[in-house]
Amino acid sequence: MEVTNRYITIKTQVDGEPKESDFELKTSALSLSLDPSSNDIIVKNLYVSIDPYQLNRMKSQSSSQKAIGFAAAITPGEDIDAYGVAKVVASGNPEFEKDDLVVGLITWGEYSLLKGGKYMLRKFDPMGFPLGLTAYGGFFEVCKPKKGEKVFVSAASGSVGNLVGQYAKLFGCYVVGCAGSKEKVALLKEKLGFDDAFNYKEEPDLKAALQRYFPDGIDIYFDNVGFEMLEAAVVNMNTFGRVAVCGVISEYIDATKRAAPNMLDVVYKRIKIQGFLAADQMNVFPDFLSTTTDHLRTGKLHAVEDISDGVESFPSAFIGLFRGHNTGKKMVKVADE
Amino acid sequence: MEVTNRYITIKTQVDGEPKESDFELKTSALSLSLDPSSNDIIVKNLYVSIDPYQLNRMKSQSSSQKAIGFAAAITPGEDIDAYGVAKVVASGNPEFEKDDLVVGLITWGEYSLLKGGKYMLRKFDPMGFPLGLTAYGGFFEVCKPKKGEKVFVSAASGSVGNLVGQYAKLFGCYVVGCAGSKEKVALLKEKLGFDDAFNYKEEPDLKAALQRYFPDGIDIYFDNVGFEMLEAAVVNMNTFGRVAVCGVISEYIDATKRAAPNMLDVVYKRIKIQGFLAADQMNVFPDFLSTTTDHLRTGKLHAVEDISDGVESFPSAFIGLFRGHNTGKKMVKVADE
Repeated sequence: MEVTNRYITIKTQVDGEPKESDFELKTSALSLSLDPSSNDIIVKNLYVSIDPYQLNRMKSQSSSQKAIGFAAAITPGEDIDAYGVAKVVASGNPEFEKDDLVVGLITWGEYSLLKGGKYMLRKFDPMGFPLGLTAYGGFFEVCKPKKGEKVFVSAASGSVGNLVGQYAKLFGCYVVGCAGSKEKVALLKEKLGFDDAFNYKEEPDLKAALQRYFPDGIDIYFDNVGFEMLEAAVVNMNTFGRVAVCGVISEYIDATKRAAPNMLDVVYKRIKIQGFLAADQMNVFPDFLSTTTDHLRTGKLHAVEDISDGVESFPSAFIGLFRGHNTGKKMVKVADE
Repeated sequence: MEVTNRYITIKTQVDGEPKESDFELKTSALSLSLDPSSNDIIVKNLYVSIDPYQLNRMKSQSSSQKAIGFAAAITPGEDIDAYGVAKVVASGNPEFEKDDLVVGLITWGEYSLLKGGKYMLRKFDPMGFPLGLTAYGGFFEVCKPKKGEKVFVSAASGSVGNLVGQYAKLFGCYVVGCAGSKEKVALLKEKLGFDDAFNYKEEPDLKAALQRYFPDGIDIYFDNVGFEMLEAAVVNMNTFGRVAVCGVISEYIDATKRAAPNMLDVVYKRIKIQGFLAADQMNVFPDFLSTTTDHLRTGKLHAVEDISDGVESFPSAFIGLFRGHNTGKKMVKVADE
C-alpha cells in the first residue's frame, strides 16, 4: 500500500526573516510496507509544534547547530523535523503498533517516515503532554524564584511566555508581561492573571517603561526576545537579579541585533544571565507534570493555543511567529485522528 | 597635638580615562586629641590598595554607586576611601589602641580620620591578609570549577587575574591568561605556572586567538575586561560554560565599549554569565585563608605586588591601572611603620 505524502521543505538556507518564498510544498509517494525488522515507523502527523528556534536550524550557519542533536542544521529539500503528535500507520518496531498515538520528533508534513530506531518517539499519554517544560524548568530551575519577587516576562503572550507568567503568578510572584498588541495585553491581564502588562510597541523608551512598571525593580527577567529589552531589563534589575535567556528572537532574524547590557550593572548588582534549554530540565519533569496537571484540572492554568490548519499552513504559521501573529502555543493541525 | 595631613582628592567628577589633572594634593591640619567617647579613630596610613573600581565611584553617574556602601560616589574635594593597612595614632574607641595595626577602609592620604564608629576596620592579623578573596571566591564559588577544565583569565597579570590563574592551576585546571606585554606574558608562563599566555595587543582577531589557545573550547572565563574579549570568549566557550564577571575595565573608561555577546551561544551552550563582588564571598573566607596561607608557605603561590611610594604617587598609581602599567596587586606605600 502506498500513500501520497505532502510535506514542506526549505528551498535554500534562510538567513534573516523567513518569507513564504523560502518554503516549498513537495509531494512524494510513500510505501506503507515496512520490513518488520527495520525498526522504521511511518506515522500520520496530527499536530505539529511551530517554534522560533527552527529558524536557527535553517540558517547557513548558527552556533545552535553545533549545540545538540535536535538543533542540527536543516538541509534544503529534506524533511523538517519538529515536535508533534501523530498516529502510527505502519511499524517495523515491535514497541509501536498501528493506531498507537505517539509524541516526539515528526515532520512538517502529512506523514513522517522515521527510520532505523533513531527517532525520538514515545507513546502519547493524554495527561503526559510535553509542552511547557521550557517555561516550568526555565522559571523554577534557572530563576529560582521566591514568593513575592517581581517577575518580568517578554513575549508574554507567546508559547513559553504565557506559561511562565501563569506559573509565576500561581507560585506567588508579582508578574508583568509585555506583548505586541492591545488584544494580547488584554489577554494577559484579563484572562491569564498577570498583575500588569504593556504593549512594547507603544513604549518609545523601554528603560523608562520598565521603571514605571517596576518601581521597586525587577528580580527575575524571563527573556524571550533579547536586544533592547534585555538591556532595559538589566538597568532595572535588583541586586542578585536573575535573567533566564530562553530565546532571542531579535537575534534569530537579525544577528546584528544583539544586546549589549551594562556590565557594570551585572557586576555591581551581581546579576546572573543564564542560557538554558528545556532538554536540560528533565529532572523537574515529574514536578512539572503534576503541578501542571493539577492547575489545568482546577482551571487555574490556561492553555493558550493558536492552531493553523493543514500542511499548506506550515510556512505562514512559522513566518507569523516572527511577526507577532500568534497568541500562545503555535501549532499546525495536519489531520484529525 | 596636631599633625599635617597630605591627601589626594578629585577636583571634579572623572568621566572617561583618568588623568593627572583630575587629582589634587591637599594639606590640612589634623588634631590628634580625640574625645574618648567619640568613637573616632585616627590612623597613619601604611599601605593603600589601588583598585580600578574606584573609577566608577568618581564618575558623575554610575550604577555602581547605587549598589553597595563601599562603591558610593566620591565627592570632589573630599577624602577618597580605600582598603589598606594602617597604624592607630589616636583612638576614641576602646576596641582600638594607639599603635594597633589595623586593616580596613582608610584613605588616599597620610592619615585617616575615621569618624563615629561607622568605619570598616579591624585589627591586622599578619596571617589574615584580606587580599585575594575576589579571586578565590570568584573562581571557586562563581565558576564552580572541576579538575581538568579549561580556564581563560583576562588581565591575567593584574591584581585579581594572577591569583585566579594560580588558584586554578593549583586546583588542577588548564589555564591560559592574556596580558598586555611580553614581560607580563613571560611572568605568567615562567613564574606563575600558567599553561600558556598571550599578548592580546598582538592578536588582531581575539576569536581566532582564543580558538588557537583553546582548541577544545573554554569551560570557564574569568573576565576582568569585558567588551571584545568577553564576546570572543563566549564564541569559544563549551556547553555549560561559566563566565565570572569580576570587572569590565573597558567599560570603566568608556561606557560605549560594551560587550554584545552572541546570545544564541548563551542559549544553546547554556552559558552562565554572573557578576559578583568579593563582599558576597565571605562564606568562603576561612577556606580562602587556609588554602592561601598553605600555598604561600610552601611557595606554590606567588604574591605579585606592585608598589608605588609616597602620597604623591596615588594619582599615577591609579591612572596606571588603566594603561596596563601595573603587574600584580597595585598598592601605594605611604609610610613605613
